[in-house]
Amino acid sequence: MTPSGSFEFEAIGHVKTMFKDKFGIPRQPGLVANAKGVIKLKNTPDLKTALRTLDQFSHLWIVFVFHEHGGKNWKPSIRPPRLGGNVKVGVLASRSPHRPNPIGISAVSIEKIDLEAAGGPEITVGGVDLLDGTPVLDIKPYIPYADSIPDANPGWAAAPITKTPVHFEDEALVDLQLKDADGMQNLKEIIIEVLELDPRPAFQKRKNPPSDPATWKTRYGFAVLDYDVKYEIREDGFWVLQIIDL
Amino acid sequence: MTPSGSFEFEAIGHVKTMFKDKFGIPRQPGLVANAKGVIKLKNTPDLKTALRTLDQFSHLWIVFVFHEHGGKNWKPSIRPPRLGGNVKVGVLASRSPHRPNPIGISAVSIEKIDLEAAGGPEITVGGVDLLDGTPVLDIKPYIPYADSIPDANPGWAAAPITKTPVHFEDEALVDLQLKDADGMQNLKEIIIEVLELDPRPAFQKRKNPPSDPATWKTRYGFAVLDYDVKYEIREDGFWVLQIIDL
Repeated sequence: MTPSGSFEFEAIGHVKTMFKDKFGIPRQPGLVANAKGVIKLKNTPDLKTALRTLDQFSHLWIVFVFHEHGGKNWKPSIRPPRLGGNVKVGVLASRSPHRPNPIGISAVSIEKIDLEAAGGPEITVGGVDLLDGTPVLDIKPYIPYADSIPDANPGWAAAPITKTPVHFEDEALVDLQLKDADGMQNLKEIIIEVLELDPRPAFQKRKNPPSDPATWKTRYGFAVLDYDVKYEIREDGFWVLQIIDL
Repeated sequence: MTPSGSFEFEAIGHVKTMFKDKFGIPRQPGLVANAKGVIKLKNTPDLKTALRTLDQFSHLWIVFVFHEHGGKNWKPSIRPPRLGGNVKVGVLASRSPHRPNPIGISAVSIEKIDLEAAGGPEITVGGVDLLDGTPVLDIKPYIPYADSIPDANPGWAAAPITKTPVHFEDEALVDLQLKDADGMQNLKEIIIEVLELDPRPAFQKRKNPPSDPATWKTRYGFAVLDYDVKYEIREDGFWVLQIIDL
């Protein structure tokens, strides 16, 4: 720490998630209940001690770095996908990663704590919205009396989340059956949960909304786990065409 | 940002609060409803733009640095005052400032936003638990659907907060009347709210609990605003003796 108001932090670990690139990531924690992640901490005795009694809590905060968004080129205002990409809001009035300091906070559920995992303690969490490899600066127990304000006014974020129906082509169902045999039983649910939120980048959603006939038949892909999910926009929603190994 | 997992952030502003030293600070936001604070942002056009539409929200997160707690000498476990100072918990299972990366998050209410304040935008917030001068790394709107988990298990933090009765000696009441004339009408409420939570450091609370007759008549002081509040422990609680200008 320097007197100039500049602060340096070293990651205490990282998060392993199924989201291998930015464009499949749910925009808030909890939206994709099936999205499990693992907080992998550095392998030091102190960090292991630091987790003592964390198992008493049901939820924790991950304080992390949006490492794929440099703080150098932050944008003072952004167009949230929730508002259809047409309305500008200040970035500090949003949860966008393009912030002056690209720090995020996510409340997630604690599924399992394994202090003795090889290579360092592991905390399995549910409902993550983080890119694979996200650096972790801190974890904190969720304390409802300090953190939970159910009747807070959500401002423009009150706009309902639109979900687009998701369908599967026969070929995709065969692909799923094969993955199923590999032990990925909930892959279909994960794909639906991610896809119905329309994981495309904001500018693309704005330019090519699913409702616009000019967009139909356009093909896209997104990465989840080790798979590339190929899909296409049609009149009645997203159609999954193929699930290919990456 | 460096590939080694080390990240540098520059404060975007600081928080002005009534808490001039560490020992009068409520241990969580919201506990002292009268504790207003002002987030003072740097005077740049970009930061002003970045606040656009924040006035639609009722609450915000302050992401800040515990700047009086160096990250170098963090402690893997601490003894929370809530548990009487006898039980050790891991620091990552606590909200203690003595963390590997001394970053805090506080949910506070938005009272007023003044974009045109001299020297930079100001956000007046309610329920702060921060030391005066606390560096701010980020502010984010509070979004209940992502942030509010009312039924989260609070683990060991479920222990009820003990409050000690607060009384005022005549001399202190005269002091209050004088400050009242200076325009500090709610100074008495602030002192009660801070003092009933026993603002002494944990080791002192542990060594000298208010219930222990050996502690009675011991005098203490804490700083709030520009005042030094002198008080004494007696059988029936804390007695405020004097309120002195600092």
